[in-house]
Amino acid sequence: MRKEREALPLESILMTDRLKEMKLYKGNIIYTQEPKHFEIIENGYIGVEDGKVTGVYEVLPECLCGAEIIDWGNKLLIPAMNDVHVHAPQYRNLGIAMDLELLPWLDNYTFPEEVKYADVSYAKRMYSRFVRDLWRNGTMRAAAFATVHKESTRVLMELFRKAGMGAYVGKVDMNRNCPDSLCESAADAVRDNEELIMEYGGRDTLVKPIITPRFIPSCTPDMLSACGKLAQQYGLPVQSHLSENLNEIAWVRELEPESKNYGDAYNRYGLFGQTPTIMAHCIWTEGEELELMRKNGVMVAHCPTSNMNLSSGMAPIRTFMDAGLRIGLGSDISGGHDLSIFKVMVYAVEVSKMHYQRNKQTSFLSLSEAFWLATKSGGSFFGKVGSFEEGYDFDALVIDDHELNYDHYSLQHRLERFIYLGDDRQIERRYCRGIEIEEPEIAES
Amino acid sequence: MRKEREALPLESILMTDRLKEMKLYKGNIIYTQEPKHFEIIENGYIGVEDGKVTGVYEVLPECLCGAEIIDWGNKLLIPAMNDVHVHAPQYRNLGIAMDLELLPWLDNYTFPEEVKYADVSYAKRMYSRFVRDLWRNGTMRAAAFATVHKESTRVLMELFRKAGMGAYVGKVDMNRNCPDSLCESAADAVRDNEELIMEYGGRDTLVKPIITPRFIPSCTPDMLSACGKLAQQYGLPVQSHLSENLNEIAWVRELEPESKNYGDAYNRYGLFGQTPTIMAHCIWTEGEELELMRKNGVMVAHCPTSNMNLSSGMAPIRTFMDAGLRIGLGSDISGGHDLSIFKVMVYAVEVSKMHYQRNKQTSFLSLSEAFWLATKSGGSFFGKVGSFEEGYDFDALVIDDHELNYDHYSLQHRLERFIYLGDDRQIERRYCRGIEIEEPEIAES
Repeated sequence: MRKEREALPLESILMTDRLKEMKLYKGNIIYTQEPKHFEIIENGYIGVEDGKVTGVYEVLPECLCGAEIIDWGNKLLIPAMNDVHVHAPQYRNLGIAMDLELLPWLDNYTFPEEVKYADVSYAKRMYSRFVRDLWRNGTMRAAAFATVHKESTRVLMELFRKAGMGAYVGKVDMNRNCPDSLCESAADAVRDNEELIMEYGGRDTLVKPIITPRFIPSCTPDMLSACGKLAQQYGLPVQSHLSENLNEIAWVRELEPESKNYGDAYNRYGLFGQTPTIMAHCIWTEGEELELMRKNGVMVAHCPTSNMNLSSGMAPIRTFMDAGLRIGLGSDISGGHDLSIFKVMVYAVEVSKMHYQRNKQTSFLSLSEAFWLATKSGGSFFGKVGSFEEGYDFDALVIDDHELNYDHYSLQHRLERFIYLGDDRQIERRYCRGIEIEEPEIAES
Repeated sequence: MRKEREALPLESILMTDRLKEMKLYKGNIIYTQEPKHFEIIENGYIGVEDGKVTGVYEVLPECLCGAEIIDWGNKLLIPAMNDVHVHAPQYRNLGIAMDLELLPWLDNYTFPEEVKYADVSYAKRMYSRFVRDLWRNGTMRAAAFATVHKESTRVLMELFRKAGMGAYVGKVDMNRNCPDSLCESAADAVRDNEELIMEYGGRDTLVKPIITPRFIPSCTPDMLSACGKLAQQYGLPVQSHLSENLNEIAWVRELEPESKNYGDAYNRYGLFGQTPTIMAHCIWTEGEELELMRKNGVMVAHCPTSNMNLSSGMAPIRTFMDAGLRIGLGSDISGGHDLSIFKVMVYAVEVSKMHYQRNKQTSFLSLSEAFWLATKSGGSFFGKVGSFEEGYDFDALVIDDHELNYDHYSLQHRLERFIYLGDDRQIERRYCRGIEIEEPEIAES
């Protein structure tokens, strides 16, 4: 936290101009700088300029007294949520089809739904609801899977862009073990990816492409190789799935017999940390695979709701944290049933407690650790995102929890109650990179 | 489902009078008669007379054409929720204090909060919110623990009575291993219980007393014996806790060395099915304890949110169902963090999937099974409650899910989406024993 300092004359003049651009957000500020505890500033100020945090102040420095103050009173001011693994086209299936495990679930529910996204108007209708609901739940950044369809993927990117929200959006690449209509050649995948890269590859936009081979069983060596080259050539990040389900892992062993493990299969194609990479699930990751993730800086997308709903298992997040892996939280709809990353935090703590119950030598996640995963840790994939430290993008939520705060609760307990009991009704304002984000429109077609 | 029948002349005359009293609720009716599947009647009718269901009809029988029809259009009409294990005085701690296991959690958070209920005005303020929130979440019947305090327990009973909602309310009995101010003699416990029994013991009210020894570690043999006698003497049901946590079980073994197992300890004092009995948790129940529960018809209150939050474990509900145990669902606040029994259903399915993941010879709970547990199975503790079969109390919710139902969803998928994604915003009306229940007032003191 920056302390007040004395203003020099020259600095004062320059400051006067700066103050016109600066905003100060006042409220009860809570965030995590590191996992072990919350930073809590009662009635504090966050300075924001050019969309970035310039400082957090317990007492307003005199030199900033001319800046506009937006006063949120007794409300909570927290970093916005980051969802590092979410399937946008599974939005319609949210909360249904919970009766199968991963592989038959893909065949019976997921692929048939994704086929519909050949129709751009269907994509508009569903994706606009998806983006609106991310907004509703306070998620300002997402690493999203689209489908194989270039045009529908562009629809999703445009919706994020219009909303002003940050996203890595991946046109999914796959060419085996899927319905014919979702199958494409590696050459077609490269062409379609490059078209989107040309359009959205610019460095300064909030919405960017990400190379997205679905997972090893859906991609031939040709396709994986093409994806790895795209990532390297354009310096683009990668997202995929890893070690989610034991049957899937056995299948990958058959499909990629030369690879030492599932992760190594991606690694051999330049898809495992050669550029920034998210791997979803990693429930059964251990040993050499874990070590490779650590070495390569691959981020785990921990998706505990999905992992329970699909009977996949419970990822050992404490082990991953102790090993120094990068980790974020993912809603993974529609494997997960809830877009709210706050609710994913609750499940993350609970799942870690089930590990702890079996092995009391470990410890379960504290709330500040879960919050850190959802904000600063997951947010790091999107840049300086997820904290209120100086230089971070001002991605923030104003939480009006008066209905939950009817007794004398501490600020940390107020946050905890909002996370456990609250919902979108308490999220009063949302900011992404310093801009207040209004409710995105739904396209009714 | 009753089919239309021809009306005889005499029957017609009697019917005309009956029709004045009868109401027909029209809507999309969903309920479970047995665990394996839903009964689904699109645009059907439920006849209700004297608070009880007289029949469910696909087509309105001619002989009922004079009865008042309350038409809920395209909305869903489902049985109300039953919460078979909830601690009313832990309402203030909901969503906080999730950092300890059962025994230290009781000492550090639960008991200090319960001490406050010596103050009746505090009880009014908190209990009125608790009852209002049960109402909000569509729970029309609850088996609730109060505290040791007679006057505060009466406050809770009165709040349920005024609301028109059904409840077994237990003055908690305990006399060891708790703060002095929550300790009482067995004689005092008997006297206070009897006072409440005299006041609320009548057969026809919705609100009734239930004998509530907290759990073995809190009750000396004297106290347990006194509780067993009270239950027998007044023909009252019993509720307590069983085999929740491994440290607790080890402690009970020390405290009750003559008992074969934890359940047997209750059994020896007449507190294990001698009168209708609910035992919360039963995570580690197996072998002889399980067999005794089955033989004695003791109901398991399955509380999966609480069991995860307190690092207790995951109860083997499939095993219990296969063994023919009686089971209901409990929110168990504030071990559990959510009063919504719909959300407890979600966790019940998920926990069963984690068992299935480890042992594929078993099967996980289907949605209809979870729904059945929350309605007909749990409801059976309160009488003929939890179904729309003839003779059942009309405990019902009207679900307006239009916001979730933006595409062509089947009725079962609409219900599933409401359970997984919905909240109190979709619960439009609530009925308990045929009476529409209005929002209970909150006492601000």
